[in-house]
Amino acid sequence: MTDWRSLAPAERIVLDCIFWSAGLSRHELATKVGFSKSRTNAATGALIDRGLIEEAGPGCSTGGRRPETLSLSRQIGIFAAIDLGATSLDVALLAPDMSILAHHAEPADVRSGPGVIVSRIRALLRELIKKCRVNGRDIAAIGMGVPGPVDFADGLLVAPPLMPGWEGLSIAEYLHEDYAAPVFIDNDVNLLAMGELWRVHRQIRDFLVIKVGTGIGCGIVCRGEIYRGADGSAGDVGHICVDYNGPRCHCGNDGCVEAMAAAPALSRLAVEAARGGRSILLAEWLETRGTLVPEDVSQASRSGDVAANAIIQLTGELLGRMLASLVNFYNPSHVFIGGGVSQIGPLYLASIRQSVYRRSLPLSTRHIHIEFAKLNELGGIIGAGALAFQECLKRAPA
Amino acid sequence: MTDWRSLAPAERIVLDCIFWSAGLSRHELATKVGFSKSRTNAATGALIDRGLIEEAGPGCSTGGRRPETLSLSRQIGIFAAIDLGATSLDVALLAPDMSILAHHAEPADVRSGPGVIVSRIRALLRELIKKCRVNGRDIAAIGMGVPGPVDFADGLLVAPPLMPGWEGLSIAEYLHEDYAAPVFIDNDVNLLAMGELWRVHRQIRDFLVIKVGTGIGCGIVCRGEIYRGADGSAGDVGHICVDYNGPRCHCGNDGCVEAMAAAPALSRLAVEAARGGRSILLAEWLETRGTLVPEDVSQASRSGDVAANAIIQLTGELLGRMLASLVNFYNPSHVFIGGGVSQIGPLYLASIRQSVYRRSLPLSTRHIHIEFAKLNELGGIIGAGALAFQECLKRAPA
Repeated sequence: MTDWRSLAPAERIVLDCIFWSAGLSRHELATKVGFSKSRTNAATGALIDRGLIEEAGPGCSTGGRRPETLSLSRQIGIFAAIDLGATSLDVALLAPDMSILAHHAEPADVRSGPGVIVSRIRALLRELIKKCRVNGRDIAAIGMGVPGPVDFADGLLVAPPLMPGWEGLSIAEYLHEDYAAPVFIDNDVNLLAMGELWRVHRQIRDFLVIKVGTGIGCGIVCRGEIYRGADGSAGDVGHICVDYNGPRCHCGNDGCVEAMAAAPALSRLAVEAARGGRSILLAEWLETRGTLVPEDVSQASRSGDVAANAIIQLTGELLGRMLASLVNFYNPSHVFIGGGVSQIGPLYLASIRQSVYRRSLPLSTRHIHIEFAKLNELGGIIGAGALAFQECLKRAPA
Repeated sequence: MTDWRSLAPAERIVLDCIFWSAGLSRHELATKVGFSKSRTNAATGALIDRGLIEEAGPGCSTGGRRPETLSLSRQIGIFAAIDLGATSLDVALLAPDMSILAHHAEPADVRSGPGVIVSRIRALLRELIKKCRVNGRDIAAIGMGVPGPVDFADGLLVAPPLMPGWEGLSIAEYLHEDYAAPVFIDNDVNLLAMGELWRVHRQIRDFLVIKVGTGIGCGIVCRGEIYRGADGSAGDVGHICVDYNGPRCHCGNDGCVEAMAAAPALSRLAVEAARGGRSILLAEWLETRGTLVPEDVSQASRSGDVAANAIIQLTGELLGRMLASLVNFYNPSHVFIGGGVSQIGPLYLASIRQSVYRRSLPLSTRHIHIEFAKLNELGGIIGAGALAFQECLKRAPA
């Protein structure tokens, strides 16, 4: 296993640079990190000797001999990625270049508590390790996302509204019973943002990723890095008010965007439309299935159901109200909407955009792009792997 | 005049470091900038040769001979600082250590247009230069704050709601008729934040400065630097909605915090209280003076006037609603409230705090400090000077 602690500062900088820009020549690398040729060569040589990077196939020539390019070595080890949502669990093993070696997804109920969930995670990790014919000692680091506020420095959950019973729990301690590798825990939306940043949007400096599922959260990218705020709770936007006369939220306040526009609100609005006689389709499904979920609204909308369209427009408008405040404050160049609810249909994005444009100032919106997240289901997994890699380089592992 | 363009990268880094931490020894400086001893000495020597820094009085000894300390030289030149508010104009000349050499403040109405205001600024600068017995060529750089959104890269105002007629105007061009020095224009609240950061809170990484005057704006400090967003409009929080059924704002939306809680709203509420028979004191003053301003509310409150207290509580509560959204999103460690309205009395801060605590999540508020800004009236001036110094080092001057 890689001994991250023994890496010299220059070696960390070079390894991080190759992580973000594999395929650089030594010359390009030196320019990028701002080191002299000799300092770059010393760090590169040390990393090659340690087996952490390798020189491979020729890159683009600018005249003379085509230079060798640098990339990460598989000898770095394997990264375990865990993406725990309120109702889903994804576990995966990744190579250092974040390609997926094995991946398992299943429904989960985070309210069943840490005992059940953490046991299941440990079992799934063992299965995937076996499937890949590797060894627990090959795990270089573990990254994990959870659907609640995390004190990122110590990896503990703090008053997580969707996760009663997880408060102050150290998930890392449980995982350390199986693995010596460092464990990094973050909010699931930060990992989604990290995934989008690392895989798709490396050149964008300031953007937001909004995840709409059982809850609503926001990942903040500031100057090309995840911004977590003073206590690690930045982006906790679910309880921003979008209607001061709105319904009571579980947090005790009225009109929180999460209470009015996340998945449970969509289900509630669908049931109301069915019972209120505003949608024959939704009424039929409610009759048959006993319950309605956001996907039903999506399907009804695609069949041209007027009430379903109205629900999508309303929740898009409400999310847009919250987003307008963020756009006025933060002036991002891009906003990416992800999470299960975002897949409800194109009308959703149109409603969000309309709401943001109406309530934001010209200077904040003249260049803004509001789009669906690119990775979506895999975003959390790739983000968890990328976070684990980067944090190993940044700090002494826990 | 200092030729900023000719400074080598290492010299810029060292000069910037001394600007933020005057009185360092060479050894402390090397540690701080992360340079080797020889690289630090080379850059320091070059800056001393150019007359930009000087070695002065001995610092603290750690054993042997007490080391010389480094500080900025007056030969760098003089920094002109201009802080234009919606109803006030401050012009000052500052030494490189941001001590004030001359300062003039007067009321101004930004709506009288760029012709009148810019002429007045030029006249005041000439007067101050004469008063200090210096020369226009001694001006090293000019920093200026304006009460509207600025595209910071080119210094142009973009659709400024309080400044009709200033749209797309290059103030720098006018100032360049008198001075060859580079000119940097920023939003007035960013300068207030810069002033607080540079003079008072160098050790705080992530904080917000809210300015409540004719308008409401927010300066954002992120990882120890001003954050301006993708288009330079970050912090434009005046049109965040705090009451979706609230009164129409000049921006076209309903219930903007600026329409409900800035100075004009306070005056309107005071007149309503006077006319509605809810305050004998305010009614008397309205009778005598024909109008009421926020200071009247302040004075009435200090005399125990119940209606005045209710106005302060209401506007504090509304500002706190907006701030709660920012705190949930940004998780700052500190929020500083400045601007003319903030001086309305201690009840104001109490109401803001109460509102924020009620509407923000535990993790965001467990360590938060919400306080009055420390510099207030001088904050913009010091911020303008500090901005000008720093930007000279960062970019090729315009």
